[in-house]
Amino acid sequence: METANNLGEREIIETIRKQLSIEPNMPVPFGDDVSAIRQKNGNIAVLKSDMLVGKTDIPPQMSYWQAARKAIVMNISDLAAKGIEPLGLLVSLGIPRSITKRSIVQIGKGLNAGAKEYGTSIIGGDTNETQDLIISIAAFGATKKDVTLRRGAHPGDILATTGLFGLTLPGLKILKEKLSAPLEMRKKFIDAVLMPRARLQEGLALAKTGATTATIDSSDGLAWSLHEISRASNIGFLIDCPPFAQETFEFAKMHNLDPLKLCLYGGEEYELIVTIEPDGWRRAQEAVFGKGGKLLKIGKATVKHAIHLRHDNRMIDIEAKGYEHFKHKR
Amino acid sequence: METANNLGEREIIETIRKQLSIEPNMPVPFGDDVSAIRQKNGNIAVLKSDMLVGKTDIPPQMSYWQAARKAIVMNISDLAAKGIEPLGLLVSLGIPRSITKRSIVQIGKGLNAGAKEYGTSIIGGDTNETQDLIISIAAFGATKKDVTLRRGAHPGDILATTGLFGLTLPGLKILKEKLSAPLEMRKKFIDAVLMPRARLQEGLALAKTGATTATIDSSDGLAWSLHEISRASNIGFLIDCPPFAQETFEFAKMHNLDPLKLCLYGGEEYELIVTIEPDGWRRAQEAVFGKGGKLLKIGKATVKHAIHLRHDNRMIDIEAKGYEHFKHKR
Repeated sequence: METANNLGEREIIETIRKQLSIEPNMPVPFGDDVSAIRQKNGNIAVLKSDMLVGKTDIPPQMSYWQAARKAIVMNISDLAAKGIEPLGLLVSLGIPRSITKRSIVQIGKGLNAGAKEYGTSIIGGDTNETQDLIISIAAFGATKKDVTLRRGAHPGDILATTGLFGLTLPGLKILKEKLSAPLEMRKKFIDAVLMPRARLQEGLALAKTGATTATIDSSDGLAWSLHEISRASNIGFLIDCPPFAQETFEFAKMHNLDPLKLCLYGGEEYELIVTIEPDGWRRAQEAVFGKGGKLLKIGKATVKHAIHLRHDNRMIDIEAKGYEHFKHKR
Repeated sequence: METANNLGEREIIETIRKQLSIEPNMPVPFGDDVSAIRQKNGNIAVLKSDMLVGKTDIPPQMSYWQAARKAIVMNISDLAAKGIEPLGLLVSLGIPRSITKRSIVQIGKGLNAGAKEYGTSIIGGDTNETQDLIISIAAFGATKKDVTLRRGAHPGDILATTGLFGLTLPGLKILKEKLSAPLEMRKKFIDAVLMPRARLQEGLALAKTGATTATIDSSDGLAWSLHEISRASNIGFLIDCPPFAQETFEFAKMHNLDPLKLCLYGGEEYELIVTIEPDGWRRAQEAVFGKGGKLLKIGKATVKHAIHLRHDNRMIDIEAKGYEHFKHKR
């Protein structure tokens, strides 16, 4: 008999989706970074829910404070991709019986710190008894304008990211497999895992320019996220300036690992990946710079429905792989 | 060291709440049935999230279809108490590795059936790997009018419920402890557990009358919910027509149980409990009747801050007890 174990996360989602009567005129299609509802007054309510689970999402070295904050970052990142300001957060907690009062205080403080960091607050929630720690957040925002979807990229659009990739997998390898790294590098990798940051200011600035044609956050990894835009927009990408962190290559060399795998097929990275119409590029870059952020031009959208990346004078075909629950044993 | 086990659910919630910077001007205070955000255009966004957990919320005889539907009922019931129409639902799923594809299909069908039953739909969500089945729902609605809170009841207001209490605890005892009951009675008790119903039409009709002064759903049991309104509104109640199901008394007699405990200190009952200004009573009752529902006058709000119930010519003082996670072993 087929179980969740053989199916994998994406087939489970597809199995559930097939049972649902999906509304035909949703402002955001099922499966994009956020969900949305058009209200009677024309405003669009934007909603996101994402669950942090102890066993799969919290490395042993992560504190309860950091875990609670991360649960918020995960949700804010999806609103950020769509340029939506968070207006309030709900928290559904699942707490194991053995957890101490001190840890519960830390969870509360981490939730509050995460909300404040992104200019919002916790407005309610509920508490339950579970075997493993569960922090399920629902985030709410609203917009008058249409939301930029994953499906709007056109051939010729500029492909850009708000930062570099490849830091979290080395971080996890250091934390879980005890791999070594020089102090500064180690700090940077571990920080990417324990203190991820959502690119909210960047996302809000980009949405205001009106220049983005497709957006996604990169929590399923660079390769997977690029394939998502590619699939949804029916285009491909040619990437000639890959956004790879230099440290990842040094770390890979030290431990005889494939640096491209670390950069492409990671996950739990929270950079935004966007396509921008060529005329709007300068405006978009200046808007993000103005908020103290980065916008790196990494390539362009192509007619050919494939993702090619130029690296070391080789052309590499990027596979549609990424972190998937049930399939990974980490 | 204090753990969740000794603290109990309500102290855990209080511990978390103390760490949060609560917004001072929220349209609905922290801890009411729903949460809300005033939007720039004046509309109030109403949000609710509640989590169904396999071990505590799903009796062994409950199917996956029923469990998924119940997760939705739990959330709709809170919107119903506030008279808010659900406009969309998000689903965060935690799925154990061992679950079969057939069960996943049943979860999808149950989610869809629950959403349709209350005139709404699933607009998004996420899937995760957990040890126990977790179905965390976030429900969204909106209103132009102020939300009726738990704190608006005044002495002299009429206390009413949309139905009778005492069916779910016998149902759980039949399912879990294999207690016996005559066929018809057994069916009714079990139905209350496996197929609970949210009083959405009743709640929407009541809100339109503008006659309610305080409202709550009764998912923590009749006694607890009455105490919640009492605490929030700083009033008491005198109940002279208790809304007790007749079958519960027969069942209690058969098994030598205290029928009042079954009726007062149950939980997972989804009737609405409301206070109504005396002038509005007739209007309120007709509005609910018009939707095919019931509105039972059970007593009135009093100045004295205590909850007294007249039963069999005795006056009983109702304690503030109800189902609480971590404290119950069921």
